[in-house]
Amino acid sequence: MDISTPRPVTAQDALALRYGPDAIPAAGPWNDHIALLLSHRSIRGYRPDALPAGTLETLIAAAQSAATSSNLQTWSVVAVSDPAARAAMAKAAGNQKHIEQCPLFLVWCADVSRNARLGEQEGAELPTLPYLETFLVAAIDAALAAQNAVVAAESLGLSTVYIGALRNDPALVARLLGLPPGVMGVFGLCVGYAAPEVTNAVKPRLPQAAVLFHDRYGTAEEPALRAGYDAQMAAFSAQHEMGATSWSQRVIARMGKLTAMGGRDKLTDVLRSLGFPLK
Amino acid sequence: MDISTPRPVTAQDALALRYGPDAIPAAGPWNDHIALLLSHRSIRGYRPDALPAGTLETLIAAAQSAATSSNLQTWSVVAVSDPAARAAMAKAAGNQKHIEQCPLFLVWCADVSRNARLGEQEGAELPTLPYLETFLVAAIDAALAAQNAVVAAESLGLSTVYIGALRNDPALVARLLGLPPGVMGVFGLCVGYAAPEVTNAVKPRLPQAAVLFHDRYGTAEEPALRAGYDAQMAAFSAQHEMGATSWSQRVIARMGKLTAMGGRDKLTDVLRSLGFPLK
Repeated sequence: MDISTPRPVTAQDALALRYGPDAIPAAGPWNDHIALLLSHRSIRGYRPDALPAGTLETLIAAAQSAATSSNLQTWSVVAVSDPAARAAMAKAAGNQKHIEQCPLFLVWCADVSRNARLGEQEGAELPTLPYLETFLVAAIDAALAAQNAVVAAESLGLSTVYIGALRNDPALVARLLGLPPGVMGVFGLCVGYAAPEVTNAVKPRLPQAAVLFHDRYGTAEEPALRAGYDAQMAAFSAQHEMGATSWSQRVIARMGKLTAMGGRDKLTDVLRSLGFPLK
Repeated sequence: MDISTPRPVTAQDALALRYGPDAIPAAGPWNDHIALLLSHRSIRGYRPDALPAGTLETLIAAAQSAATSSNLQTWSVVAVSDPAARAAMAKAAGNQKHIEQCPLFLVWCADVSRNARLGEQEGAELPTLPYLETFLVAAIDAALAAQNAVVAAESLGLSTVYIGALRNDPALVARLLGLPPGVMGVFGLCVGYAAPEVTNAVKPRLPQAAVLFHDRYGTAEEPALRAGYDAQMAAFSAQHEMGATSWSQRVIARMGKLTAMGGRDKLTDVLRSLGFPLK
């Protein structure tokens, strides 16, 4: 489906794209907001066209409207336009050229430094700062915020892709953006207009029965569900990605060797060096 | 603003509620999707009314449509209706009665166990499993998914609140839901119809200049921005929460003593006991 094609408006059509025709979940309520969410695709190629004035501010307003634990607001975002910083990040993130292409590149940060400065300026000790919990809250709240920005962007006809490989070298990202101790770029986000040549079909996900449980976790159905999804993803991959790789093969390729982590096996040490003791 | 009041349809009105009349960011593009995102409020009191048939499946379809790192899908969700499990969780989460009240309580889990089982069944070693990075991806992907479910729920006239206090005792949550090693309830989410008596004004956030940076992080404006926000939050709190507490006072109350963590200062040890070595 081309990005310019209107998104499916019926639940049935949208669910068939997301789950395949054989795993459509029970029909529920539906509206255009839900149709927008279901139509998400990550896009890895952008036109250079600038965004309309005020787009960044609108996306950040959406992001700040997401819930944040105890209203602590322990996240920040850096909009990166400096070409040298973008080129360095693109290279560090496994040469992802779309980081340089897209008109808006956002670095979403876990940020406990603002609250640390508040404590210093008010003369208050904040003994909770060095804990893993505090870092985790910051990372989760950054994710909730970023996802709202993604939904807002897609509602405006823009495309996005998260850049987890920004964690390949968080110390480099911190140097390039002047991040103080207690701030870490958790992931990046490209925002822009999809390049016309980019493949962008809705990617099927595991059937709901594989990820949604009622009262108790269970694995009895899992092997059959995975076999069905493997066949579906192999067909999807053959059609859209010039291969025929099952989901299981992809998971093993990605999780089966430390080199696939791109340096992220060092994350605990890097986080400590950036001011997150992870107590 | 009552929950039954239609949300503001102009950018100006919605931004004034979110930032206060003196900190409205630059006007940008606007539509009903963005108006929905801006109107978010966390709700801590619910009517017992059941949700329409298929609502859970629709919310999960929205959740699964969020991006997931390398399509690994390392998250799961448990819909908890068992009254004993809910009561135990409500108690563990600092006696949050809305966990028992709401018609749908979702436990969002970081879940590397499904991919671990895949590796075992396929005879493949997955050496990346025990790393902090892998847990972090799982927690972030659970957050992206949950936020999509929140947006979908709110589009249907439902309300929500995240329950971070589910991390007060993740081992108890794991026992109650039969979570295998490699699965951890990262946070809960109440979903339902807001009780009419619940206060539910849109909560102002820090001005954009305090969280959004251009190319380089900076703190020069921060003291003035914080002073303005402190005054605004004290006024908001006096009007809606029967107090007049500034943001800085709230942050210090929340981050200034370990007891406010409700046990979450033990999170690293608990995660290790649940099958996340955090290497």
